[in-house]
Amino acid sequence: SGQFFLMAGPCVIEGEDMALRIAEKVQHITDKLQIPFIFKGSYRKANRSRLDSFTGIGDETALRILAKVSREIGVPTVTDIHESGEAAFAAEYVDVLQIPAFLCRQTDLLVAAAQTGKVVNVKKGQFLNGESMQFAVDKIKQSGNDNVILTDRGNSFGYSDLVVDFRNLPAMRSFGVPVVMDVTHSLQRPNQASGVTGGQPALIETIAKAAIAVGADGLFIETHPTPATAKSDGANMLALDRLEDLLIKLTKVREAIR
Amino acid sequence: SGQFFLMAGPCVIEGEDMALRIAEKVQHITDKLQIPFIFKGSYRKANRSRLDSFTGIGDETALRILAKVSREIGVPTVTDIHESGEAAFAAEYVDVLQIPAFLCRQTDLLVAAAQTGKVVNVKKGQFLNGESMQFAVDKIKQSGNDNVILTDRGNSFGYSDLVVDFRNLPAMRSFGVPVVMDVTHSLQRPNQASGVTGGQPALIETIAKAAIAVGADGLFIETHPTPATAKSDGANMLALDRLEDLLIKLTKVREAIR
Amino acid sequence: SGQFFLMAGPCVIEGEDMALRIAEKVQHITDKLQIPFIFKGSYRKANRSRLDSFTGIGDETALRILAKVSREIGVPTVTDIHESGEAAFAAEYVDVLQIPAFLCRQTDLLVAAAQTGKVVNVKKGQFLNGESMQFAVDKIKQSGNDNVILTDRGNSFGYSDLVVDFRNLPAMRSFGVPVVMDVTHSLQRPNQASGVTGGQPALIETIAKAAIAVGADGLFIETHPTPATAKSDGANMLALDRLEDLLIKLTKVREAIR
Amino acid sequence: SGQFFLMAGPCVIEGEDMALRIAEKVQHITDKLQIPFIFKGSYRKANRSRLDSFTGIGDETALRILAKVSREIGVPTVTDIHESGEAAFAAEYVDVLQIPAFLCRQTDLLVAAAQTGKVVNVKKGQFLNGESMQFAVDKIKQSGNDNVILTDRGNSFGYSDLVVDFRNLPAMRSFGVPVVMDVTHSLQRPNQASGVTGGQPALIETIAKAAIAVGADGLFIETHPTPATAKSDGANMLALDRLEDLLIKLTKVREAIR
Repeated sequence: SGQFFLMAGPCVIEGEDMALRIAEKVQHITDKLQIPFIFKGSYRKANRSRLDSFTGIGDETALRILAKVSREIGVPTVTDIHESGEAAFAAEYVDVLQIPAFLCRQTDLLVAAAQTGKVVNVKKGQFLNGESMQFAVDKIKQSGNDNVILTDRGNSFGYSDLVVDFRNLPAMRSFGVPVVMDVTHSLQRPNQASGVTGGQPALIETIAKAAIAVGADGLFIETHPTPATAKSDGANMLALDRLEDLLIKLTKVREAIR
Repeated sequence: SGQFFLMAGPCVIEGEDMALRIAEKVQHITDKLQIPFIFKGSYRKANRSRLDSFTGIGDETALRILAKVSREIGVPTVTDIHESGEAAFAAEYVDVLQIPAFLCRQTDLLVAAAQTGKVVNVKKGQFLNGESMQFAVDKIKQSGNDNVILTDRGNSFGYSDLVVDFRNLPAMRSFGVPVVMDVTHSLQRPNQASGVTGGQPALIETIAKAAIAVGADGLFIETHPTPATAKSDGANMLALDRLEDLLIKLTKVREAIR
Repeated sequence: SGQFFLMAGPCVIEGEDMALRIAEKVQHITDKLQIPFIFKGSYRKANRSRLDSFTGIGDETALRILAKVSREIGVPTVTDIHESGEAAFAAEYVDVLQIPAFLCRQTDLLVAAAQTGKVVNVKKGQFLNGESMQFAVDKIKQSGNDNVILTDRGNSFGYSDLVVDFRNLPAMRSFGVPVVMDVTHSLQRPNQASGVTGGQPALIETIAKAAIAVGADGLFIETHPTPATAKSDGANMLALDRLEDLLIKLTKVREAIR
Repeated sequence: SGQFFLMAGPCVIEGEDMALRIAEKVQHITDKLQIPFIFKGSYRKANRSRLDSFTGIGDETALRILAKVSREIGVPTVTDIHESGEAAFAAEYVDVLQIPAFLCRQTDLLVAAAQTGKVVNVKKGQFLNGESMQFAVDKIKQSGNDNVILTDRGNSFGYSDLVVDFRNLPAMRSFGVPVVMDVTHSLQRPNQASGVTGGQPALIETIAKAAIAVGADGLFIETHPTPATAKSDGANMLALDRLEDLLIKLTKVREAIR
């Protein structure tokens, strides 16, 4: 239809009811706007700053919830993996395997994800430009899997800030793969002294509009009914009841560039 | 009309015929699209890397050409000044005085520009965020002049690259002044070993679309009939015959966000 | 003795003869200067840009060579691991397990390395400041292992350059752990269009002297008899026959700050 | 003598007694250590963030104090100028004219300073690498003045931090001119929300030692009897009574690299 697609969900799977409720609500909104929707939820957080940060409710429990969301709501799902051994395991439950930005250069992980035959979504490292992601695409395709998505989540800008360089979107689109803007993590304020990452949720609309205007194929947005009580990354999540309004605005921008 | 405005012209005034020809052509295009147009031309380049770089055809000669463009084509004009003593002098010929990015913290220069009563367009330093430009606005307003424009031309990103941080546009718009995206200089590749700044003209459309999508009030685009033969900054200029197509696309994005 | 220590060796273990030859030569030099020496060699390169880059001669073969170097030359050894499953395996052969900079936030990997009881050397991420490494130290200590080393290998500075921020050395020393400057990788020029990282070997002495002057406890220097023919990272390696001269100069700086 | 030289003094000339007192004290210390000393004081601050920041006690009053310090204490003096018209005026009172970092590309200013015949000290822009300063050196030498000093004061690193890239010192020394590390301004924390620049005075020794270790010819240190009450830049000034101890340490590092 020429519409962009949406990866959305909570940061981490906190429980079945919450997951189903968010998925149902987003599915309802995206149906109306003819936006293809992929439900996102981490089954574990592997790179938190602190050992005492919340990391999940149990790997298999969380993955089963993702599978149930897919079955009951009728949407594909995506989750992130961190070591090569997790690829085949997670692939039994989800449709898209996501490679975290810090890990986008880990050959074993990319190859293991590719070999599952699932779609592989690689987040661009905060230390890389778009052109450099050619190597990640090649590693996956040379492993026999052509279903690659690339996602931009901003670049390091000093120690405690990220900047989105929109030149990277056309650079990555030139590889012939869908390109996603991760609005949520692009707005992180990393390396805060507290060990808890900060954010700037008021700028979600700014980053999302610019991304659609320059031709992003998809958006990645973490959303939660009550971001302030989310167990991870609440600082940048979009309140669920503000999602529809945002998507309507973005749909207009998308139409303008067709 | 809800339309954005355009500051456009050659980098530096190379001669009367060329200036009139560019102004007339841009005026013709912007008239059709109801885009308010301000003709831009430097009367001197004061911060070239090399002493043997082309710096202009003579200050007064160039300023008189700007005045003639204004009179004959019926458009306002803008030029940049570099020391406080130039403010009153340049103000006799043009409508908008522009403060270069490297100089946006020079109090004497800002105050002298403000005191002419002309509109003052301050380019954001490549080392500053949008919030910091509050101080430039304050210096001008506290000098009795409320006609301030702020322009973003990207931020230093390592030694030889610039990145546009689109968060700075809403930050600067919050001061209640018009905000412009300088598409041309945002795409510079500074500090090349040759002493001649490089560029990436293919990305003009990317930066311009993102800027309009996030609410820029105006665009700054250097344009030339034959950028390859321009005497300054040819690397990033838009070929004049591609301007209309670009503005049509941008007008659609502008309509989408209204 | 108040002297600094040295981690040195080839980037990757290319073969037994080469490893023994390098270790013997470095051991001879460091003995004279009373510099404690840890032999470094990767048994596999896991994050190369390209799938067709050289990645090693076989994991176990390489690890056995490291063990043989330790036995025959009488020096401790260090190698890097990339997934948690490798920790116990590599720990059978070496004395220090090194965590690559991209992976310094991966909790599972840090905990697995810590649980081997070996010394854990964590490289500071190119996207982190020294203060943030407190969290890596905590994860290891809270896993019951107090033998932590932190190594700085520079910070991302634009897309294709790294800068060493010497403020990070005292910041990391404040945690009460030894701090190492990785001279070799700090001088990388990442993300070159070719997919092969560039370098600036002439600056090795500059970075090393500054590190010792500000109190680094150790240095990490990759060295090779003929850097131009090394199978990995040759661009920044120090020619082995220049090592002694460098260490003599650095010993003088070390004495000056005692 | 192989010793480094020192540019030191208060940020801005606050009054005659204070200036003489600081100069006398520093002269006493540097005499003992055989460190050539140039007294530094701004006669006006031209690029403060806020219009209501303290900018000086009057240009001529301050310049006369600089001349008196030179006469009475027997030391050369340095002050910074901001527009080309100030060059000849300031040159009547001081020995070295300093070009602020934001202005290091302003050709008219460099040429005017050069034409006074005084030594010209150009601060490297926060947005430039060492190599780029070749163009500033050329502009001055091509104006008939070979007495150029280059000073590094750090590089923009994100919006609110600076990093010193020590690779720039050998790069600038390769032009055959003395190179100075400005320890004070390298430690600034710019663009704080308050409009008052922050600092990290505990790191003065770190930056100074690294600079001397890599071959800096001189150091620039702002010092004040009571930094907390200084009228400008107090955040990074060295307390005057800590200067001697620092210089003794640095002298040892200097001897170590000879």
